[in-house]
Amino acid sequence: MRNSNRQWRLKRRPAGDIKQGDLHFAEAPKPVPGPNEILIRNVYLSLDPTNRIWMSDMDQYMPPVEVGDVMRGGTLGVVEQSNNPGFKVGDIVLPGLGGWQDYTVSAFAQKIEKGPLPLTAYMSVLGMTGATAYFGLLDVGKPKAGETVVVSAAAGAVGSIAGQIAKIKGCRVVGIAGSDAKCKLVTKDYGFDACINYKREDVLQALKKHCPKGIDVDFENVGGEILDAVLTLINMNARVALCGLISSYNADEPVPGPYMFRNILMKRARVEGFIIIDYLPRIGEFIADMSAWLSQGKIKWHVDVVDGLEHAVTALDKLFTGGNTGKLLVRIGPEP
Amino acid sequence: MRNSNRQWRLKRRPAGDIKQGDLHFAEAPKPVPGPNEILIRNVYLSLDPTNRIWMSDMDQYMPPVEVGDVMRGGTLGVVEQSNNPGFKVGDIVLPGLGGWQDYTVSAFAQKIEKGPLPLTAYMSVLGMTGATAYFGLLDVGKPKAGETVVVSAAAGAVGSIAGQIAKIKGCRVVGIAGSDAKCKLVTKDYGFDACINYKREDVLQALKKHCPKGIDVDFENVGGEILDAVLTLINMNARVALCGLISSYNADEPVPGPYMFRNILMKRARVEGFIIIDYLPRIGEFIADMSAWLSQGKIKWHVDVVDGLEHAVTALDKLFTGGNTGKLLVRIGPEP
Repeated sequence: MRNSNRQWRLKRRPAGDIKQGDLHFAEAPKPVPGPNEILIRNVYLSLDPTNRIWMSDMDQYMPPVEVGDVMRGGTLGVVEQSNNPGFKVGDIVLPGLGGWQDYTVSAFAQKIEKGPLPLTAYMSVLGMTGATAYFGLLDVGKPKAGETVVVSAAAGAVGSIAGQIAKIKGCRVVGIAGSDAKCKLVTKDYGFDACINYKREDVLQALKKHCPKGIDVDFENVGGEILDAVLTLINMNARVALCGLISSYNADEPVPGPYMFRNILMKRARVEGFIIIDYLPRIGEFIADMSAWLSQGKIKWHVDVVDGLEHAVTALDKLFTGGNTGKLLVRIGPEP
Repeated sequence: MRNSNRQWRLKRRPAGDIKQGDLHFAEAPKPVPGPNEILIRNVYLSLDPTNRIWMSDMDQYMPPVEVGDVMRGGTLGVVEQSNNPGFKVGDIVLPGLGGWQDYTVSAFAQKIEKGPLPLTAYMSVLGMTGATAYFGLLDVGKPKAGETVVVSAAAGAVGSIAGQIAKIKGCRVVGIAGSDAKCKLVTKDYGFDACINYKREDVLQALKKHCPKGIDVDFENVGGEILDAVLTLINMNARVALCGLISSYNADEPVPGPYMFRNILMKRARVEGFIIIDYLPRIGEFIADMSAWLSQGKIKWHVDVVDGLEHAVTALDKLFTGGNTGKLLVRIGPEP
């Protein structure tokens, strides 16, 4: 049991790629829970592309992390001290955005009943990651059986699940990923119909080959040239569920939108951004469906766990270099 | 009564701006209606930005006009000869896309009962132009009372009507147009709350001033820098009804999409293309509402009539240089 609280604080806003000196690893006193609050020892920290957005002061979907503040991040932890009758020491909880630190104090948290699934599942397939795939694909993308769905960053935490849900719904699913090994995972483990290695293949030509009937739904995580290739091949009334644009998050200069933007008009297509927080009131739908699919063995997932809070910044970089496969987590401390 | 049929035929696909030699003014024999067909003498020809798209072989919402074919265009005409019991000589009809020519033969046409409105109304406010504004704004843009709506090409045939409908629905409406004279028309005649002259003003700064609560709906006719400025200021869950992208129709090189494309994600916005032909089954809704608004004096409109089919190509150019105000028509021959 630590007596201090290690924290990553934003030291300055990154210019381009995140550099080590952009965040500062500091030590603060262990926080003390007030009336009705609980002290949570953080066990897992979720690393997500959106972390990079939060470090920037661009106009975004929630306020950026202020310089000097503890870096924001989703966490899973264990109650170490409780002043709240609803929680007891040892409870496993999701406090939401517990931050890049050893300890979080909170008055609210979602309790997890330990079941057959590993705790990391609640930080990936059964957590916000899975929910993002679920609502983004089904509610924004609205695929119909027989349609063709393209998923970029298909070996990633969200993409891999989005594609599997599209398969469950009876679609042809084509992934795009950044290595042959990832593509193998995408087709063999996740069951996509095809996967394109964008580092080795001409994406437009490969999409033409693997989407002979065109593209009806795009679950977009990447943007840039990959989105452009997809827009070139969209069908009438196609839908682009805009989940992320990771190709531009580190950009220091304005990034042009897709050159085939005009096809949104020509094909009466719909491009729609979404954020999982808007779907939290409907999270029960996701939990019900995903739990059933998991118990039927219909969904597979991978986690990539990096040990040690001190390595969080280095680990985050993997998301931007394609160094991870599946959901990227930092293990801050041992599971209870 | 002519004994020949003058026709504009596509001679070659334009590179960049349309040049005189891209179309060829030819004379063909006057067509003869077959069984059940009518011979229509064309009176008005509609000139629209989309004409430029049809001349190009880019992937588009309907097949392009083939080189050598009569140029496609919407027409209003009068029946000169009828082999169809549903029509008699003198009937005023809309045959759909009658083409850039003196005569059209058709088996189907929509009859117009002459009323208090001039015939040009059926080629503008009560025709496809008005319907485009109506369904694009209401069905795609879905404005709510109190929201802020921006309309580009606000003095144009579609934009001027879209903005007036938004006013009827209780919105704050800000137009963007290309001259002070057009802006005056937009605010004084069409009743928009403000209008920005994009040739004289910094559009982003002017939008900030005139849209103090941000932008909820964009009725987009232009694209390019104007769309970028709008996307910079969109509110959460904003909607962009993508009606046209005239700023790029003459482009010979790939045109980048909006640099603020990322705001579609950040603001959970929706960008959706639409084409009026998809709404034809619902045209009755438009006719009912628009007829009521017209009889109540709630909608104003302008037509810009160019005399002589021989001037059609020169006239079309006005759409791309901002030379017209309101609906641009060619009067091919006298009204009956």
